[in-house]
Amino acid sequence: MRQTLRAMRMLRGFPAGKNKLASPVIFCSGAKRGAVLITKGQQRQYASAPTGTQVVQLTSNMYPEIVRDERFGKLSAEDMEYFKSILSPGSVLTAAEEDLSGYNIDAMRKYHGQSQLVLKPRSTHEVSLIMKRCHERRLAVVPQGGNTGLVGGSVPVFDEIVISMSLMNKIRSFDEVSGILVADAGCILETTDQYLAERGYIFPLDLGAKGSCHIGGNVATNAGGLRLLRYGSLHGTVLGVEAVMPDGTIINSLGKLRKDNTGYDVKQLFIGSEGTLGIITGVSIFCPRRSKVVNVAFFGLESYEKVQQAFVRAKGELSEILSAFEFMDRESQDHVARFSELRRPLDESHNFYVLVETSGSNRAHDEEKLQTYLEGLMESDVISDGVLAQDETQLKNLWTWREGIPESLGKSGGVYKYDVSIPLDELYQLVEDARVRIQEFGHEIGTDSSNVVNVVGYGHLGDGNLHLNVAVKQYDKEIEHILEPWVYEWIEKRHGSVSAEHGLGFAKKPYLQYSKDQTVIELMRQVKKVYDPNGIMNPYKYI
Amino acid sequence: MRQTLRAMRMLRGFPAGKNKLASPVIFCSGAKRGAVLITKGQQRQYASAPTGTQVVQLTSNMYPEIVRDERFGKLSAEDMEYFKSILSPGSVLTAAEEDLSGYNIDAMRKYHGQSQLVLKPRSTHEVSLIMKRCHERRLAVVPQGGNTGLVGGSVPVFDEIVISMSLMNKIRSFDEVSGILVADAGCILETTDQYLAERGYIFPLDLGAKGSCHIGGNVATNAGGLRLLRYGSLHGTVLGVEAVMPDGTIINSLGKLRKDNTGYDVKQLFIGSEGTLGIITGVSIFCPRRSKVVNVAFFGLESYEKVQQAFVRAKGELSEILSAFEFMDRESQDHVARFSELRRPLDESHNFYVLVETSGSNRAHDEEKLQTYLEGLMESDVISDGVLAQDETQLKNLWTWREGIPESLGKSGGVYKYDVSIPLDELYQLVEDARVRIQEFGHEIGTDSSNVVNVVGYGHLGDGNLHLNVAVKQYDKEIEHILEPWVYEWIEKRHGSVSAEHGLGFAKKPYLQYSKDQTVIELMRQVKKVYDPNGIMNPYKYI
Repeated sequence: MRQTLRAMRMLRGFPAGKNKLASPVIFCSGAKRGAVLITKGQQRQYASAPTGTQVVQLTSNMYPEIVRDERFGKLSAEDMEYFKSILSPGSVLTAAEEDLSGYNIDAMRKYHGQSQLVLKPRSTHEVSLIMKRCHERRLAVVPQGGNTGLVGGSVPVFDEIVISMSLMNKIRSFDEVSGILVADAGCILETTDQYLAERGYIFPLDLGAKGSCHIGGNVATNAGGLRLLRYGSLHGTVLGVEAVMPDGTIINSLGKLRKDNTGYDVKQLFIGSEGTLGIITGVSIFCPRRSKVVNVAFFGLESYEKVQQAFVRAKGELSEILSAFEFMDRESQDHVARFSELRRPLDESHNFYVLVETSGSNRAHDEEKLQTYLEGLMESDVISDGVLAQDETQLKNLWTWREGIPESLGKSGGVYKYDVSIPLDELYQLVEDARVRIQEFGHEIGTDSSNVVNVVGYGHLGDGNLHLNVAVKQYDKEIEHILEPWVYEWIEKRHGSVSAEHGLGFAKKPYLQYSKDQTVIELMRQVKKVYDPNGIMNPYKYI
Repeated sequence: MRQTLRAMRMLRGFPAGKNKLASPVIFCSGAKRGAVLITKGQQRQYASAPTGTQVVQLTSNMYPEIVRDERFGKLSAEDMEYFKSILSPGSVLTAAEEDLSGYNIDAMRKYHGQSQLVLKPRSTHEVSLIMKRCHERRLAVVPQGGNTGLVGGSVPVFDEIVISMSLMNKIRSFDEVSGILVADAGCILETTDQYLAERGYIFPLDLGAKGSCHIGGNVATNAGGLRLLRYGSLHGTVLGVEAVMPDGTIINSLGKLRKDNTGYDVKQLFIGSEGTLGIITGVSIFCPRRSKVVNVAFFGLESYEKVQQAFVRAKGELSEILSAFEFMDRESQDHVARFSELRRPLDESHNFYVLVETSGSNRAHDEEKLQTYLEGLMESDVISDGVLAQDETQLKNLWTWREGIPESLGKSGGVYKYDVSIPLDELYQLVEDARVRIQEFGHEIGTDSSNVVNVVGYGHLGDGNLHLNVAVKQYDKEIEHILEPWVYEWIEKRHGSVSAEHGLGFAKKPYLQYSKDQTVIELMRQVKKVYDPNGIMNPYKYI
């Protein structure tokens, strides 16, 4: 380690005492020098979905205990005529005329609905007209954004009408002094962030599915993602929501004010309601200034304890410039190396890896802070090896490597995903316990004959958010029953959350009580009942 | 200006090129050198309340159109017996035995209720027992924290029982890794922040009344304050709430997780509900690391346009270390100088003043950023004169000067306070228009014979939050009618908020519709009706 540190100091190549570091450098001996990370493919991939081509069984077949609610109306020829009369031709997609599987099957290829009708309104007024009809006829609906959700919340279960927000994708206004953006719900996250980047601002949310997901869907699911650590949750940054209620009433709460204490903050209920109260049609959000300087370091560590030490010191030393702290276990990294086109950032194998990002306004200051932090970690043997991105491409490549985990896991067939919050000290224990449990039930992990391909852990350590992923060759009820409700019971004992950021949707609905007290669930039910009395909004899910 | 800048550079007294500035300096020629600001009094004052001794008229006399709701029960001897039987002796205060005016009169000395009973529970269980009785007997209640609110929300109107949280003041837990604090609602903000300071953390909220207000009251009123700019709103930082519902049900939602997407975030409804849905008994909140280095600069500017320029540049140049940007007009500063014991930070008079605070982790870096920022402003003639706090005492004195405004305004007799959010470019126009209007109605400002002592503007510019204060010798319906609803109509035209951070309480209840759409108000009413069906929680207020 001493030698490594000396090597690093030489590599830096700047006169001592001057706080100038023109470009980030490799800071440890074991790293690939020069080109930190090369992607073999050119195209950055955002989808985290399994890409298998196998048939996705109908949800109604997979879960025969869930039956269609007979209080809901059935789509009639008159309904079809009505929708065609109020919407433009490209806005009404019927199963008779088109393949609707892209709207009926979720991103995980785990749930398969049977909607016969997809509507694509172009305005809030059109959404309102649609909902008025659905209210009168008690037609159940599923609001759909980019359909990138991971809990089956954005696809129908039976014949619910899909209301896709994809054609409502305009920026309505942006104030370059205050940083407040007002935009249609159907704006794609990455496109919106690009718009803001051109104006020196950043969308206060980033996640792997950014190239497909909608900002309305992000708000509806209270997406967390990679930079919650820095910019906080959407409950703090979303300033206003425009929504259409189940009876067609348009709720205009698109405030553009950072402070507004006039009454209950009801828009908060829509944040994370997953389309069960109304359809979000517009969003007003506070966007911070985009940092002029972004640095990314990636390093290997030998124990989870050291990962925690690195985190505590990052909070103290990187402080106001820390913008992400992601951790990954060895198994997840081996999986990406095996199933993706990407090359490893570090040659040698380590038990854990961390990606640290800083975002600040002064290159020399930020690099000095990061350097001091990394040197300190090396001197105290917390980290074993590491690289520092030297340019924008390398920085993006390191992120692509991190974001490539879910995608590569999907390639084996299917993934049982557990997105949980756990107190930090016990966070990784769940992954180890899951491996033991799977083996105890007679399943090998990663052998040719076993259905279980891998059991990996990674996630947003800075937020106490673990992704436990069990990759399988094919979805299998037996594996599911080994893991569930065991995982949720494990979480409950530690007062964690059974869904940190993915939401409830169809998949987690039965497990709500593992995270929420019955009295709180009762308050939720009261909200649902009073805002959606007929229950037509995204039924069979959430609550 | 050139000369000033040269003088400043000399004053700095450090070799050029080295980014070291051992202690902050006076950076402009007109400032008092050496001792930036000296308080004549030793005791720091936190209360912003008028300190007059005149009799506060009963609210029921001042507002005869508001009548007691006859559905509410009247306190009986049996009720008294019951409360005495479940609470300890010091927890039951009756009008027959004690002076309850401190609980019946608000901090503004504007509202005067007639409660005959104050209860001071010591546990959530006791609060629950109290509410069960109140529910059965339909006894109306007013939850009360530090009673520092400015809209009459924390005192009774008629004979409502006051439930004071002052004896529930324990820190329940603090996690030094995650920074998550769980504490009783009755903990005093300043005491709590001091507890956190000793552990290297900060409460993500600061406001003038910190020495008296309760953190439960802060959450119940969604307090904004001085550092929302940096740490965001309580909707983002509060992770959990424990509350007792009107029927005595204890809602345990004291999650300690930064991410938890399991169902509607109903705790958000309690944040800013001003005691109208339930009584907050405990709070879980995410506290950031306390910055190691805090700097405060105070400067004079000649126009509101220049104030805005200074703000936009602060966002760009101070960026991640900017923690407060407060502005004050000349009239507010003259008022503090006249009515308080404090000494002016700057000798010469300016039309506007700004207090900028930075909070960061590296002294040299922060001071370099602040210095570059201030030099840039001086070079482009944005600021005319300024001082930089040189030590902790001077820093506190500059803040005391800023926080002294509300207190000094109260000393003249009474204050009509308008706490509003307005788009930045028009923010100060309201103050100027208010002066014109008052004069048009035949009232001089600041003369011996006039009741209107001063019309001043100051506030949290970084949040678009203006405090328009009209100081009077005595409250006067005529002045009130000159200002209201005129101020609210003015705000409505600019899509602002009639209450940025003070809330609705009794004072702003009639003006809710100036900020909120009828459809949104209807959603609020539904929430109130379903959670507090008998309307016993803090009646005659809010909605």
